[in-house]
This record gives sequence, structure tokens and C-alpha cells, in this order.
Amino acid sequence: MISRTSPELMAVARGDMPADIVFTNGLVINVFTRRIEEVAVSVFGGRIAAIGPDAMDAAETVDLGGRFLAPGFIDAHMHVESTMMMPREFVRVAAPHGTTGVVFDPHEIANVLGMPGIKLLMDASVGLPMNIMFGASSCVPSSKFENSGARLEADDLEPMFDDPRVVALAEMMNFPGVFLGDESVLAKVRLGLDRAIVDGHCPGLSGAALGAYVASGVSSDHECTSAGEATEKIALGMQVFLREGSAARNVEALIPAVNDANASRFCFCTDDRHPGDLHRDGHIDHVVRKAVGLGLDPVTAIAMASLHVADHYRQPDLGAIAPGRQADLIVFENLADIRPSLVYCRGELIARDGAMIETVEMELTASPDDSMSRGSVKLAAGFTSDSLRIRVNTASRLIRVIEASPDQLVTGERHVEPKIEDDCYVADPSRDLLKLAVIARHGTSNGIGLGFVTGFGFKNGALASTVGHDAHNLAVVGTNNSDMEVAARALETAGGGQCVVQDGKVLALLPLPIAGLISDADAMDLIEQQDALLASVQAIECPLEDPFMPLSFLPLPVIPKLKLTDLGLVDVEQQRVVDLEV
Amino acid sequence: MISRTSPELMAVARGDMPADIVFTNGLVINVFTRRIEEVAVSVFGGRIAAIGPDAMDAAETVDLGGRFLAPGFIDAHMHVESTMMMPREFVRVAAPHGTTGVVFDPHEIANVLGMPGIKLLMDASVGLPMNIMFGASSCVPSSKFENSGARLEADDLEPMFDDPRVVALAEMMNFPGVFLGDESVLAKVRLGLDRAIVDGHCPGLSGAALGAYVASGVSSDHECTSAGEATEKIALGMQVFLREGSAARNVEALIPAVNDANASRFCFCTDDRHPGDLHRDGHIDHVVRKAVGLGLDPVTAIAMASLHVADHYRQPDLGAIAPGRQADLIVFENLADIRPSLVYCRGELIARDGAMIETVEMELTASPDDSMSRGSVKLAAGFTSDSLRIRVNTASRLIRVIEASPDQLVTGERHVEPKIEDDCYVADPSRDLLKLAVIARHGTSNGIGLGFVTGFGFKNGALASTVGHDAHNLAVVGTNNSDMEVAARALETAGGGQCVVQDGKVLALLPLPIAGLISDADAMDLIEQQDALLASVQAIECPLEDPFMPLSFLPLPVIPKLKLTDLGLVDVEQQRVVDLEV
Repeated sequence: MISRTSPELMAVARGDMPADIVFTNGLVINVFTRRIEEVAVSVFGGRIAAIGPDAMDAAETVDLGGRFLAPGFIDAHMHVESTMMMPREFVRVAAPHGTTGVVFDPHEIANVLGMPGIKLLMDASVGLPMNIMFGASSCVPSSKFENSGARLEADDLEPMFDDPRVVALAEMMNFPGVFLGDESVLAKVRLGLDRAIVDGHCPGLSGAALGAYVASGVSSDHECTSAGEATEKIALGMQVFLREGSAARNVEALIPAVNDANASRFCFCTDDRHPGDLHRDGHIDHVVRKAVGLGLDPVTAIAMASLHVADHYRQPDLGAIAPGRQADLIVFENLADIRPSLVYCRGELIARDGAMIETVEMELTASPDDSMSRGSVKLAAGFTSDSLRIRVNTASRLIRVIEASPDQLVTGERHVEPKIEDDCYVADPSRDLLKLAVIARHGTSNGIGLGFVTGFGFKNGALASTVGHDAHNLAVVGTNNSDMEVAARALETAGGGQCVVQDGKVLALLPLPIAGLISDADAMDLIEQQDALLASVQAIECPLEDPFMPLSFLPLPVIPKLKLTDLGLVDVEQQRVVDLEV
Repeated sequence: MISRTSPELMAVARGDMPADIVFTNGLVINVFTRRIEEVAVSVFGGRIAAIGPDAMDAAETVDLGGRFLAPGFIDAHMHVESTMMMPREFVRVAAPHGTTGVVFDPHEIANVLGMPGIKLLMDASVGLPMNIMFGASSCVPSSKFENSGARLEADDLEPMFDDPRVVALAEMMNFPGVFLGDESVLAKVRLGLDRAIVDGHCPGLSGAALGAYVASGVSSDHECTSAGEATEKIALGMQVFLREGSAARNVEALIPAVNDANASRFCFCTDDRHPGDLHRDGHIDHVVRKAVGLGLDPVTAIAMASLHVADHYRQPDLGAIAPGRQADLIVFENLADIRPSLVYCRGELIARDGAMIETVEMELTASPDDSMSRGSVKLAAGFTSDSLRIRVNTASRLIRVIEASPDQLVTGERHVEPKIEDDCYVADPSRDLLKLAVIARHGTSNGIGLGFVTGFGFKNGALASTVGHDAHNLAVVGTNNSDMEVAARALETAGGGQCVVQDGKVLALLPLPIAGLISDADAMDLIEQQDALLASVQAIECPLEDPFMPLSFLPLPVIPKLKLTDLGLVDVEQQRVVDLEV
């Protein structure tokens, strides 16, 4: 791409040299004034060269025939690991939906592999037709109640900021660490402020604690769940990202907070988007359509999906159709149902009618070596089904059981009478009481957390996943130790993934060999593998559509109430490990 | 001032430690939501610690009794040299008007002294109770049609950006150089983009040329004179500063361009503000009052005078009453006539009822040595009144005369019959035809430009000034060579200034010994000296209230139409030196 200060760009802008492309007869979305203009737009060397009433001289004319031309969409915050795709495959799926920019927080791979994992994703993004930016993952591990594969301090993160693609310290989830004044946490915030900006994460935080968090310099949040919460946060100067992902969906609740005077304080993000949802329902385009369907002015929605993100991350080259900015553009027909028919990145047509253009260069410039990311699932020597036995200790009358819900990350805690066999607590599928194990898999610990969970509802078999937020240890839920062992071993052999086991047989396995989180398959193959996996879930008569979503969040000890990590049961509200026996 | 990430700030924000000050019973201006909130605001270590419904525990309570509390004002662009004050004196005068931040473009002193002059102003700003930021002066000299005291290229400016107070490349006035693709000009823009942002200056620029200018990365303009011009510029993504200075006054024309949806794209600036105006009428407070008087919503006006400037210059510590930001605050009674009664900078009360608090520390931390800035007026060896004679060359029937106007920088060109004595063209006060000389004074040239001007209207005497935009050569207007020589010599002796001479006697002299631009006196003494100077203007029966304003702009060869520099008469529209004789 040409430099903004190139004399050729000036010459094309003046009209003294022909452009590469001119878009004529379009309705052009101006995200500064939030108005629609009937102007021609010319592109040269990957940048917008000129905007004017008359068509400019150009090598190629694209007659828009009354269609709309808008800046491409930018996701303000997402974890690409949740798509289970490497960046190239992600681009293949997301770009046809109009995504031309993203801010990746490589938090998941960082928890498994540390800085080399972050470097892998960054290297694997170079050369792709998308503006892939990064946040420096701020909370690895996210909690002291689990053993992750790595620990990152401010000194580890510091060199990341030398890369111009690193635009923020990513979501500072340890908001108590901030407002309680933890020095190592504040050191990371300080680093972020010195080198860029600091993104936040503070669900439900309010009043004095929120004020303290903002005082530290944290300048955004994507965890709002009510309009009142969003309004309180923008009144303190935060940028609020309206999140609509596969798990958390907040747009409907938050749209009422947006008005003409404050719209510049809002962006959109997806945070976590699963492979099938991304492919079938879309990415930020899906969020924009939803917001517009809920009554948000479409041009304001587009501005929130483009300029406001670029402004937040200080990216004056992105986010608008304006002279000198990158020609990241989408074409669509209907403001009420925005579906990009053409997508341009840096002036190149990269997608048409929902599919990538086949000739677009997708070779990675850096050709990263991902070998260090493989074989990341290391079960302790001597691990057998016996390792999953839970011996009765005090012969308590009641045990703690995690109450999982199919579409919430929050869990409950129930106290029930245990079933005992051979002096061990065992699953009782007749009462939907299944055994849960979280097995350390990073080689940094031999811990196995054991407990019980209700909510999965199958009668025979096991499900296992090496996606287990945030430390991504191996989570297995099952009716018997033997199927659970088979499931864990199958994932160890695959180097990670998700699987369904019954009667000692692996019915389906979705391999995620890269850090146990990401597929190395083509996106479409991955989506087929995931469909097959979920079909097998039906085969073992699990009533949940996608039990891997709740399973992968059962270890997360920063979300209430009762969770299981490799250290055991964690009462998140009380911030302590608790016994199985009440 | 405490760091944003200090654990003590967190403790005060949480309410676990008392604040320094709490403001109660105030109506607090929220510049994010542009609403007024009835909340208490606490301050600790120079920063806002907390905002909440109830008064916080604090060492000192300030009961606002229903008055308003707003962020202090920030001037988005000004040349402190136009106030003729060194930064400390400027702070003494401006702070009581509610100014807590400024962006100085040291363009004038740079034209005289180059980088050492810029360094002097920067050093002389350290330790003052105001957030003094700088732009790196982009156009020294501003034109090839005059000899300045220095020339600055991108390589000279580059080290400035290591200082965190340097927030922009300052107004890129050479807009033709940008859009015509001049490499040395584009190198400066590139530097500005790499290290900060690039401010613009493009009066009347429109269409393709404006597009090219914006394409280069220039992101602001403060030269708009019509609402349509402002609207065209914000539609391209520029930040538009509404300027209201002593010479150029554009607020009235521009207010119609501002609305609820686009207000964040506007700021205020003064550009050039003269000593008396600053003291008597005010600074940004004056601009805000004027805008409100013209119908702008007062809270929007305050946001344009604070947050929008801070956002433009990427200063998340400034511009709002929000947790963690600097406690730069003003208190006032009446939204319709905003006059700060209390002014705080970094939590310290610095002014009350229009006067600085006497105990406020005003010592300069850097104690800069200004000796290099003195003696900057160097007339050529052998300069006498004879040097001012204009010999008849072709005995032309007509000569070119500059038509000056008392309140515009634009001049006209008139062709008139000359008066000839002793084979020389001479002044003819009976027709208001006075002689004008612009004498090189930097020791870099011996040039003397000679010509005639109409519009000053006095019958006997001379006026001289070493403020002569932008090269700041010595400009003298007079009825006879003898008084003109006396005036020039008087300013040489004083090391610069402005003076009134009649019959060989200096009636008044305002000394500006620092670079020939800035006084070393106390602000109040300076204002008295200027009053005395202007009284002498009356004494020689000059009908203009302040003839030094037009005089100091007569050399500026970037503003149409006919100008005089040390190289001679310049036809600015034709961009060439022209003969006196038509």
C-alpha cells in the first residue's frame, strides 16, 4: 500500500493522475457527519484518493447503481481462538461478511503457551487481507485458582508494544486487582498507558469501585448488560463496546443507551464467536443488522462498527471513507438489512456475494513455525481411570454439585446426597448427577480437580474438551471413569480438541492440535467436524445443543458461583477452594 | 502530581482514604454525556479521585452552593508570542480566565531563532501551573519570499517529539506544498504522523485540493471563515477549531455548522491574542461566552473548549471531570455568561475572581538562559536614512501601493501617481501615501524592501515594529526617512519592540527584547507599556486604534495581495517579486 504522504497519492487526489478504481452512482456513508452522500469515490494504491461530485479518471469504474458504499467493519475486541481458526481461516470466513479489521486479544493461546503462543498468532496474521491488530493479553493467568501453561508479567508484555499492530493492553479482567491497588496489576496498566491505551472488562462494576477502575486509566468496557450500566460507564469517559457473540449477547439490552450526542462513545465487538455462528450468521455485520433491527439508525450503527473503533484505538488510517484512509470498503443494497455484496481491503476486491475471491493472495508472509504449539496436552505420568476416583473422606451426608446452565456462564451450587460405590463417590445419571474432572494438561502441574455437575443430562458416556477457560486445562464430564479416561487420552493423542465417547469408543473428535484450542484444518472442514461432533452429542442423548459451551466455561474461576479447576472446587464468591463434602 | 496507577489514588477512589478536597453542592458539567449532574467530586494528589452522589471524606470541603463545576479550558492552537508574554506571564493573565491548557505553536520565535528559540519557550514553560503543550513548527520560514532568522527541516524538528509535551506537528501552512507533493514538506507531515498528529492551516481550501491535503494525513484546520467551509472539512474527518483571536474572529460565522451529532469534531482556539485583549476580554472563556451568546448550548461549548481538544491531541489525562484525570477545574455561576470565579490546576487553587492566587508557585523549574534571544535586531552595517531612499528608475507614470486595512490581513494593490523629490519617490501624507520599509534584521541578509502603503493616515512621524509576520524583519512606516531611521535604530538598541517617532524623537517604545517579539516585563507592566504606545499613536494623529496590527502583517507573503518583505514587493497571488513601478 502506498504511503499517505506519497506524491503520487497527492497527484491522484488533485486529479492530475488517474486512480486505480472509481466508484460511481453510489450512496456513500459518511461516518463523520453520519449522513449519506451522493459522491464518487476514487481509490489509488490501496487508499481513498478522492471524494467528489463527479467521477474521477480511473483504470476501473465500479458502477454501484444506487447501492451503498460504507467503510468495512472492525471488531473492537475478540479472541480468534474462540473461532477455533488460525487467522488465515478466520479471514476466509469473516471477510465475506464485511470485516476488514479486528483487534485480537490472544488471551487463550497465551494461557497455554505464553509469549510464543502470542507470537504464533501475530506471525500467522502477516500478509492477510485484513487489518489485524492485537491487544497485549493482560491477565495470564486470570486467577490464582488454576494452573495455566504460562504467566505473563508487565516485563513480558512490554516488547509486544514495539509492534505497531499492538494497539492496547487487552481487557484488564482483574478489575479487583486494579481497584484494590495490586502493584503487579497496576504495572501492566501503567505499561498500557505509556505505550497505547488500556482496554477494560468489568461486568456489573459500578459506583466507587468502577470509579477507581477508571481512575487507573482503563478506558473501555465490553461487559455491560444493561443500558443503565452502559450509561454510567460512558459518563465516566469509557468507550463502551456493545458485545454480541456466540455466548454473551448484549446488544438488545444496550441499544437504548445510544443517542445522537453520545454515539461516538460506542463500538461493537463479538468477544467470542464460534465457528458455525461466524460462518452462518455472520460477524460484525450480524451485530449491525441486529442493532438496526432493534431501531438503531443504520448510519450510526455503521459508524459504531468502523470509525468509533478506529478512533478508540488511534488508527487514523482506518474506519472511514475519507481521503488518505485505507480503502477498506463494503457495498450493500439495503440499509435495513446490511449484507455486504462486495468487500474491499486496501483497495483490493477480496469478497463477493459472501465468498472470498479465489485469486486473493492469502500466503502468510512470515510462514510461522507452529510446531511449538503442538503436543500441548500432557497428562501426568500414570494417569488412569483410577485417577478419577473420588474416595469418600468424611462420609458426609451431602456433597456440593455444580449447577450448569446451557446458555449462561454463571453456575449455581446445589447440595445433594451422593451416590457411593466401593467407598467412592460416583455419578448417578438417573438424577443427572455426572462426574466432572479438570485435568492439568500443561506439564506445569499434575493436579486433577474432581467433582460433580448437573445439567448435561446424558445417561452413558463422556464429553471432553481442552478448551477450558481460561487456563484451558482438560475438562471431562461423564457417567463413568472409563469413558472419561478414554476421552482424555483421545484428546492427549490428538494434541487437543473436543470429543464424544461412549462405551469406550470415540464417537467423534474435533481435533484442535494448535495449543489444544485451534484447528489446523480449513475453515469449512472445521465447521463440518464441529457439526459431526454435535451430531454425536445427540447420539449419546445429551439434551443440550452444544454442551461444549458450558463445559468449556466450567473451569473459569472468575465467574460465579461454583467452578472446578485442576486445584479443585472453587467458590468464586468466597474466593477459595472448597471441599466436595459439605 | 500522583500517578494514575498509584495505589493511593485507588484507595481514595474506593473511599478507603480521605481525599484532599471535595466539591459539594455543585452542578457538574459532564462533557462526555453533555449533561449536568448533581454530584460531589473529590480530588487527591492533583487528580479527580471520585465522583458520586454523596460527599467524600476530605481534608477540605468546597461548598459550591449551586455553582457550576466544569473542566478547565484548553486553547487548541495559539502563538504565545502574539501575547508578547513569556509563558509565565501568559499564565498569570490567562489562568484567571479559566485556561488550564494550551497548545503553543512557537512559530514566531522559531522564525527568528530557530530551534534554540523553541527550546527557550519550552524551558520557560516547565513548572508553571498550566498544561502547556507544543506543536512542532512546520513552516519556518513560511515562504521563500523573505529572509527569516532560521530554517527548520524535518530532521531539525524530529528530536522535539521525544518531549511528551510535543503533541503535534503544528499548523502545516504550506498547503500548496502538501497537495503539490513537495518532498521536504511531505517529510515533515510524515514525521508528524509517525510521532503524533498533524495540525493544518488551509484557509478557503476546498474540493480536490482540500481532499489531497487531507489525504496526506493533516487532521485539523483553524482557518475556516464560513459554516459551509467548516462542514466540508469535518465531512472529510478534519477536526475544526473555531478561531476567535484578536485579529481573526470566526466564531460567529462558524457556530451554525455545529450540531449535536457532530459537536465532537469541533474545538476552540485563539491563534493570536494581543496582551490587552487577553487581559481585559479574556481567553477561551471569552470565546465560550461569545459562542453561547450566539446560541450554542453552553455545555457543548464547554466540551469544545476541553474534552474535544484533549481527544484531538490524545491527552486522556485532560479535558474532563472524570476519575483519574487531572483536576483542572473551573467554578462559575451563570451558564449564559461563564466567568470563572475559581480556577484549579492539578488540584491546586490557582486563581480566584479574576486574579492569580499570590502564593501559587510560579518558579520555572528549568531556569532557562534567555541571553541568546537578546540582541536579535541586527541592522546592516552602514544603515542610514539614505538606505531608505527610493531612486526613480524608469520614471514610470504609476507606482504600486499597498492598500492596508485596519482589521484584515488581506491587503489590496492600488496604482497611483508617485510624488518625486530629488529624483526619489517620497511619501505624500496629504494623499495618505506613506513609505514602508522592511529591513532584514537577523544578520542573515542585508536586504531592505521599500515601497508605499496607504491606510495609516498620519501626517508626520514613523511607526516601527520587529513583530513582522512571519520572518519578523523590522517593518517601518513613516512620512520621512529621518524619523524612519530613528525608529529603526531605537528598536535595534532595544533589541526589538514597537515604537512611535516624530520629529526625530521616540515618543513611546514598547521593548520586546526577547527575539524582538516578547517582553521581559511583568504582564501588567507590558500592558501599560502597550497602552502608552497606543496613546502615542493618537499623539501623532494616526486614526487607527492599533496600527501595529496591520503593520506587523504587511510583510506576510502568504496572504494576498500585495506585501512587502526584505526582498521587495511580493504579489502573493502571482507568487513573485514585482517592481514598485508599474
